[in-house]
Amino acid sequence: MSFFGSSTHTLDDLFVHGLKTVYYAERQIAETLPKMAAMATNRDLRAGFEQHLTETENQRVRLEQVFRQHGVEAAETTCPAIDGIIKAAKATASDIDDKHVLDAALTFSAQMVEHYEIAQYGTLIAWARELGREDCAALLAETLAEEKATDDKLTQIAEARINRTAETQTA
Amino acid sequence: MSFFGSSTHTLDDLFVHGLKTVYYAERQIAETLPKMAAMATNRDLRAGFEQHLTETENQRVRLEQVFRQHGVEAAETTCPAIDGIIKAAKATASDIDDKHVLDAALTFSAQMVEHYEIAQYGTLIAWARELGREDCAALLAETLAEEKATDDKLTQIAEARINRTAETQTA
Repeated sequence: MSFFGSSTHTLDDLFVHGLKTVYYAERQIAETLPKMAAMATNRDLRAGFEQHLTETENQRVRLEQVFRQHGVEAAETTCPAIDGIIKAAKATASDIDDKHVLDAALTFSAQMVEHYEIAQYGTLIAWARELGREDCAALLAETLAEEKATDDKLTQIAEARINRTAETQTA
Repeated sequence: MSFFGSSTHTLDDLFVHGLKTVYYAERQIAETLPKMAAMATNRDLRAGFEQHLTETENQRVRLEQVFRQHGVEAAETTCPAIDGIIKAAKATASDIDDKHVLDAALTFSAQMVEHYEIAQYGTLIAWARELGREDCAALLAETLAEEKATDDKLTQIAEARINRTAETQTA
């Protein structure tokens, strides 16, 4: 349907396209996380961003392994979705002075990034399995488990804040 | 930290900002779903998009209730995140001729939208609770449950495709 002709003919093409967009996304995320850590006040949140940066760098290396297993060269394709998510995160954060409100906004932005990654890796695993590439699916599943664990940790940080607020109000 | 001065001072401001962005996002999604349904070949996928359109329209009405409960006028704020997600979905779909590959891409794009909404509503519920607005949290939780159910349904559609492919290969 593309005016300039189609470049995605098969599920394999789509799988490789997906690998390239998430490979691009992981680099964008790795560049953004230190800025988020620098803005965070809550110690757990800052530590979480720093830990996730290390994970993100490992996830890039793991993607390079998947590219290799699948016999294609590792390359990036820009992804308007992650660009938009990071743009929204920056816009929201730039508007906030109060450090606790900023922490709440950063937690939200980080969860948005996690859900982007959960959707990406969840789909890539399904496509890898459909293509009979259980080896690629297994590697991608390691990353998906890390993303879900990070999302859970962010939820716990948000919950802890709700409980602290409730204690303050009843004290 | 904004150069032009800050407009988000409190968690309440952030909550209202979040309501406005998701109110905008629901309209963008409602405008996109009929196009996705028209492109889908798989019957379950097409039916899923049509059903989700009805849900999305109800979710807009539910958001108007939340605005009312919270004593602010319903209004939209553009959200670069959903704009980017829809832009990515269009770019991917426009490049695909094969109808089964297109279905796979549409399923992925829909799951990306669902995860955007899961992150949005999950956070809005946490903020509503932190603000002591259990009434708003309860309404938003109804929408979150619907979004998670839709995501599960999309996963089932993707799984069914994997199983059909496996059967074809062993037949």
